[in-house]
Amino acid sequence: MAIADKEVAEPNTMSFDLTAYLRQQKEAIEAALDCSLPLAAPTRIYESMRYSLLAGGKRLRPILCIATCELLGGTQAMAMPTACALEMVHTMSLVHDDLPAMDNDDYRRGQLTNHKVYGDDIAILAGDGLLAYAFEHMATQTQGVAPERLLLAIARLGRATGAAGLVGGQVVDLESEGQPDITLETLNFIHTHKTGALLEACVVCGAILAAAPTVDVERLSRYAQHIGLAFQIVDDILDITATPEELGKTAGKDVQAQKATYPSFWGLEASRAEAKRLIEAAIAELSVYDEKAEPLRAIARFIVARKC
Amino acid sequence: MAIADKEVAEPNTMSFDLTAYLRQQKEAIEAALDCSLPLAAPTRIYESMRYSLLAGGKRLRPILCIATCELLGGTQAMAMPTACALEMVHTMSLVHDDLPAMDNDDYRRGQLTNHKVYGDDIAILAGDGLLAYAFEHMATQTQGVAPERLLLAIARLGRATGAAGLVGGQVVDLESEGQPDITLETLNFIHTHKTGALLEACVVCGAILAAAPTVDVERLSRYAQHIGLAFQIVDDILDITATPEELGKTAGKDVQAQKATYPSFWGLEASRAEAKRLIEAAIAELSVYDEKAEPLRAIARFIVARKC
Repeated sequence: MAIADKEVAEPNTMSFDLTAYLRQQKEAIEAALDCSLPLAAPTRIYESMRYSLLAGGKRLRPILCIATCELLGGTQAMAMPTACALEMVHTMSLVHDDLPAMDNDDYRRGQLTNHKVYGDDIAILAGDGLLAYAFEHMATQTQGVAPERLLLAIARLGRATGAAGLVGGQVVDLESEGQPDITLETLNFIHTHKTGALLEACVVCGAILAAAPTVDVERLSRYAQHIGLAFQIVDDILDITATPEELGKTAGKDVQAQKATYPSFWGLEASRAEAKRLIEAAIAELSVYDEKAEPLRAIARFIVARKC
Repeated sequence: MAIADKEVAEPNTMSFDLTAYLRQQKEAIEAALDCSLPLAAPTRIYESMRYSLLAGGKRLRPILCIATCELLGGTQAMAMPTACALEMVHTMSLVHDDLPAMDNDDYRRGQLTNHKVYGDDIAILAGDGLLAYAFEHMATQTQGVAPERLLLAIARLGRATGAAGLVGGQVVDLESEGQPDITLETLNFIHTHKTGALLEACVVCGAILAAAPTVDVERLSRYAQHIGLAFQIVDDILDITATPEELGKTAGKDVQAQKATYPSFWGLEASRAEAKRLIEAAIAELSVYDEKAEPLRAIARFIVARKC
């Protein structure tokens, strides 16, 4: 994965070492994920859930949750169960998206997809198990947060996951398949829901857990919306320009499927420019914060600079 | 559905009219379910979620939740969002169970199954949407309950749904398919998890929301375990003895699939006797309560008397 990529820490991040930060956070989160879901009977379902939950990836969602919580006066410990829950929901969405009845993908992050290893039935159930467990884990493991705040975070995660968020985005994405004449408005709807809603929930949950005032929650929410859209534009660009080895999955799938993408609307160069503009807008939202916001600034820059 | 069946109100329930009670509760719950999930964009996913959520059924799970909450000093209003959430989770499990990758059923409650109407992809997403929404709905709509109690109920619902409950039971059920030589222990595991865990959560959540002392929660939990197992034994009996019209689904499926069932272990008569014994044990748990427990007693009797 590209997290070890030295290019990522740009000179203008001053003394902040993003590469080291991302590595440390990823390690802490993966240790917490590993502990969160120990093997139990019936082993097959726990193995399947762990197979996808511990399959690597950038862990960007939990990192965003923790970074936001820390920026606004909270602690890593306070945010960790929610950070893990966000990754569980994200993993559920990948496991279900990869199913033959959906995108029918054989590889994910360079590994066989869940259903290729465990079968479609277990993969469906592993997703269900991860989703249910996300809420249980938040409700039982969070410490140092007022119960009414935790309920707000749970509600936010539920909303970001369901038909008003991720699931709704996925539905419109499915409906738009093979329709290269969809509008930019529809493309925006897909991505603000399919990817954007959960990314926004990461940041907003982090802020809620830290007991941040509404003005900060709203500011960070806008930051997340900007980086969410930029993330998707870069995803579309990478599908065209990256090699399968870099992506860890089949490249060129969008073009092959005649899927509408940002580059198909604007071309590659204008897409790159728009991603950059969004990242600048995201960073501008953070101008009221001191160097404690450096992780969020660096993550925003990382999103446009990433190679996979 | 058999709720209008006059035989159900047995003479020994004295003045308590179970038929009227179940009808009233079902109406209140269906009105609440209808309001809980209004149509929104993207309409296709909301239609699919509503198609299965509003497809009728006995609404036994929400009724148990409300009845327990009221028995222990709570109100219907207090329990209704959780009651609806329990029905959403139950509906999710039916929608996913019916998928071709799982049990591959075309009919449910006399109607086409979700994926036969909306496609496998939408059915998977509708289940995910219902599951996520269950937690959101509880977290945002519950009133008059202390936040820390609501968190306990959310945790309990999560646990009953995931690999430690319903999902785990379904996995062992799938693994046991075509293996007629499974042990009674395995059969018990399947049913205490696949059906039992959620039924128990209904009752336990109702008790938690009512702020009941632990002794009551544990007593009601045993009540639920007994009726849960009796419910499954009766299900197995009905699969052999009921007509497809009565069941609203294909009958004789268990025998056809050479599935281990309680009658296959014990025979029909001994299975009926065991169901009756469990119901008596369930009712015995309620002996400390006055006539306010009459709904739970009558529901227990209804479970063995039901025709579908």
